[in-house]
Amino acid sequence: MSSGLSVGVVGATGAVGNEILGLLLHRGWPILKLVAFGSSRSIGRPIKFGSKELAIENFDSDHNHGLDILFFATDSEVSRRFAVKSASLSTLVIDNSSAFRMEPDVPLVIPEINLGVVRPDQWLIANPNCSTIILLMAVAPLRALGRIRRILVSTYQSASGAGRDAMVELEESTRAYLNGEVFEPKVMPHPYAFNIFSHNSEIDESGYNGEEVKMILETRKILGDAEILVNPTCVRVPVLRSHSESITVEFEGPAPRIDEVRRVLSEFSGVRVVDDRERSYFPMPIDANGGGDVLVGRIRQDASNPNAISLFACGDQLLKGAALNAVQIAEGLFDRFGL
Amino acid sequence: MSSGLSVGVVGATGAVGNEILGLLLHRGWPILKLVAFGSSRSIGRPIKFGSKELAIENFDSDHNHGLDILFFATDSEVSRRFAVKSASLSTLVIDNSSAFRMEPDVPLVIPEINLGVVRPDQWLIANPNCSTIILLMAVAPLRALGRIRRILVSTYQSASGAGRDAMVELEESTRAYLNGEVFEPKVMPHPYAFNIFSHNSEIDESGYNGEEVKMILETRKILGDAEILVNPTCVRVPVLRSHSESITVEFEGPAPRIDEVRRVLSEFSGVRVVDDRERSYFPMPIDANGGGDVLVGRIRQDASNPNAISLFACGDQLLKGAALNAVQIAEGLFDRFGL
Repeated sequence: MSSGLSVGVVGATGAVGNEILGLLLHRGWPILKLVAFGSSRSIGRPIKFGSKELAIENFDSDHNHGLDILFFATDSEVSRRFAVKSASLSTLVIDNSSAFRMEPDVPLVIPEINLGVVRPDQWLIANPNCSTIILLMAVAPLRALGRIRRILVSTYQSASGAGRDAMVELEESTRAYLNGEVFEPKVMPHPYAFNIFSHNSEIDESGYNGEEVKMILETRKILGDAEILVNPTCVRVPVLRSHSESITVEFEGPAPRIDEVRRVLSEFSGVRVVDDRERSYFPMPIDANGGGDVLVGRIRQDASNPNAISLFACGDQLLKGAALNAVQIAEGLFDRFGL
Repeated sequence: MSSGLSVGVVGATGAVGNEILGLLLHRGWPILKLVAFGSSRSIGRPIKFGSKELAIENFDSDHNHGLDILFFATDSEVSRRFAVKSASLSTLVIDNSSAFRMEPDVPLVIPEINLGVVRPDQWLIANPNCSTIILLMAVAPLRALGRIRRILVSTYQSASGAGRDAMVELEESTRAYLNGEVFEPKVMPHPYAFNIFSHNSEIDESGYNGEEVKMILETRKILGDAEILVNPTCVRVPVLRSHSESITVEFEGPAPRIDEVRRVLSEFSGVRVVDDRERSYFPMPIDANGGGDVLVGRIRQDASNPNAISLFACGDQLLKGAALNAVQIAEGLFDRFGL
């Protein structure tokens, strides 16, 4: 890194974009220039960056704004319109949307697991789905103990996965419920106060919804294993920002010993084992919120299958599930390739 | 039934006891006499029964109070002290606690599934664990389509399963959170506002907690199948009164067709299929609350196993998960044996 980095964040006012700004500040990036891009209706609005204030700028994909790196914290449509062009101008683009994740030429990266797949000539990198990241942070380390053939996972997904407006709606609808007031959902498809519902992405003819299909396909791509079987059930729960997952992992042969599972998990960067059976203390959203680690616990031999273990994981959807993973991808590539 | 029934409810002021009173009223039981029993500190307190008021009475297990039937909506300790004695006095006793569920001589009954196991000389009947009831209402009908060898289930359990105080704590702690106030948990082991946590029953050396062990053992007893394999993960979510469950059912052979699964479920008394893929409308606590049916949806072939299907169920923990099942046991036995 020469004199510093020029960095842009597209979608800086959203929940994930805002977390990216915070991480750039707190992880001590040598920032020479920082540009926060937003939608046309937010142009000129001030946005905080540490003690400074930035004004939201308009993104023009025809030139690279002199940026070394661009984070897209936007929906697929916006990413599809702009990200490829930006990457073609030799700006490293980390895209948080699902637009390019399954493109064969676009690496889909969780740095602790598969940073090595990125080639120096690849300028567009996809950040995986939040539920996939949290799942694989808990599961990938176990490959050291045997070949994994099947994963079953039921999610407990927070509001943040649907954006800042969903987080506000969870709070507002809950307040209305407690005050005995009527609340009409505007962001979520169903009432959210003290309620849970199936993830509302579209269901295909197999009966799986879009979020679940992402978990199946992204798992195969990230683990580089086209054969691995995944059965996800994605459910939204009234939690603000951390996703939890109940996971069963079936190995090709007999399941590894539980103390071995604990060991490989606790040695894996980005995982923290929280598994205190005596105090009944296990991963919880309130402990994952604001932290970078994926918490893993309830580690046990599956009582119904000698080849399987079960566990419970919890990670901050906005951080390791989105912003932090994106920032770590960039850091990992700086380390590998320099700038 | 001669001129009417004499009925007692022990633990009438609790969440389940109160629901039993409501059901006796609304299901048109021919009540000759109704006695509400409570703990010593509630003796004499008034309790509503329709337009009337009852005074809480003290329970004396030395005589049967002239009652035909006694519902115990109490914890295991109280049930263990009193229920056997009451049943020995030829009062039909339906016990909601876990005290006698695994006793070989005590039938454990979900009426739609195994009412037939009760003999006329059995006066003490155990009501199963709420999560087990909701699970088996969704799973037992599928036995018509093939032998089931394994069940995996992750629960999304509501506050009501931990009693009325837990429901109040969920509301109060959430209100405090929204007002930026500190709240010290008194009933639950962890902060409950916008949080989820592992069911806090004690963990045994296998790594399963008490609630999960109940689901394993009670499933075997109710289905009359000592071989059936069950892997439960029990989790508390910030929902007031309905439990939800993400379920995968593995058959001995190839999984049945999904339209067949839908058919047997929709023909099963006490189950309502809620499975609208187009509108993404599936079972939710707000739709299960206050109703007697277990809602079942997300019915699909397991993408990871040709022998399995997955589904999602939701039932009112206080009703079908407790009070309603108890009342239905009594009604079923009246039908079979008269009074």
